[in-house]
Amino acid sequence: MSFSEFPSSLLENAVNEFASLPGIGRKTAFRLVMYLLRKDSEEVKRFGETILRLREEIHYCKICNNISDTEICNICSDARRDKSTICVVENIQDVMAIENTRQFKGLYHVLGGIISPIDGIGPSDLKIDTLEEKVKTGDVKEIILALSTTMEGDTTNFYLYKRLGKYKIEITTLARGVAIGDELEYTDEITLGRALNNRNPYQQT
Amino acid sequence: MSFSEFPSSLLENAVNEFASLPGIGRKTAFRLVMYLLRKDSEEVKRFGETILRLREEIHYCKICNNISDTEICNICSDARRDKSTICVVENIQDVMAIENTRQFKGLYHVLGGIISPIDGIGPSDLKIDTLEEKVKTGDVKEIILALSTTMEGDTTNFYLYKRLGKYKIEITTLARGVAIGDELEYTDEITLGRALNNRNPYQQT
Repeated sequence: MSFSEFPSSLLENAVNEFASLPGIGRKTAFRLVMYLLRKDSEEVKRFGETILRLREEIHYCKICNNISDTEICNICSDARRDKSTICVVENIQDVMAIENTRQFKGLYHVLGGIISPIDGIGPSDLKIDTLEEKVKTGDVKEIILALSTTMEGDTTNFYLYKRLGKYKIEITTLARGVAIGDELEYTDEITLGRALNNRNPYQQT
Repeated sequence: MSFSEFPSSLLENAVNEFASLPGIGRKTAFRLVMYLLRKDSEEVKRFGETILRLREEIHYCKICNNISDTEICNICSDARRDKSTICVVENIQDVMAIENTRQFKGLYHVLGGIISPIDGIGPSDLKIDTLEEKVKTGDVKEIILALSTTMEGDTTNFYLYKRLGKYKIEITTLARGVAIGDELEYTDEITLGRALNNRNPYQQT
């Protein structure tokens, strides 16, 4: 089925809008629109309004740039969290991933991306100035660089280290090693080499 | 990444709405929402409004039940089309598929489904009464049953034939046969048997 002739421009517009989303082709877009047409008017209204509200009402936390319903996010406004440790991440998905481990009790700083010359993203496109401001206050003891283990992540780590290294803080990164559940035979040599160099005393768990 | 902790209820609502669509899981829903957050506010607004308008402003043609921007669809209001031939289809996708062949110049009648006892869909759930009304006027010469070649399609064909057979009209169905491009070796025996029984004089094309 091709889509040369739509019986309705409203239908065509809706299909085009869905098809503009990443990973949604025209056939899927058409299927989704037909699904919405069969749904209750109220439910479809809620769907449309949720999308409108999402973009118009969402806040980015003024301290850490995480997504939030309020000006300051739940994490930054939580008095029980350790304000002297800041975990630097690329995006809010990373915040959620780390929060889900329930192992981290400090604060976050969301960069909003990583340095990627190929995509034209330089340090000035990221929230690095505000990170430096926080460090300058002297309240921060440790910065944890929790970026992806890619070339871009390494570049960003290096840049941040160069820029923040002059302050009297500890700069750490996530441990690199063999992932839990991985077999050595299938672990790449760089990971295995790093895991060997960074070996730890054996602990019974 | 699991989704136990959303930093924002607006975000969570939007992810839930997308995840309620068929074939969209929670990860894809999250990805789509993050994509919308990165887009221009204007574009996201247009997306939300298109969906709101779709459900609120769309019409179903009063004559054929096809989707339309107006009370009577483009096809039914086109004076050049042959009003004595009505092609009966299950849904609007089928109208679009047949329109794309550019081989049919009559009108359509969209049933809005097919008889399927398993899904609890009986004749009274479909637009069969209005089809019978059209036939009763005496203006219709031919009804083409263009339904799927499934058990439900055959049941619906049989029902329509029983109900409309008493009027002085011709009732036809789409030709069954070997699809163009298909190899005989891989054609199922029922299709092949029908194609043999319904064989046509050879024509050079």
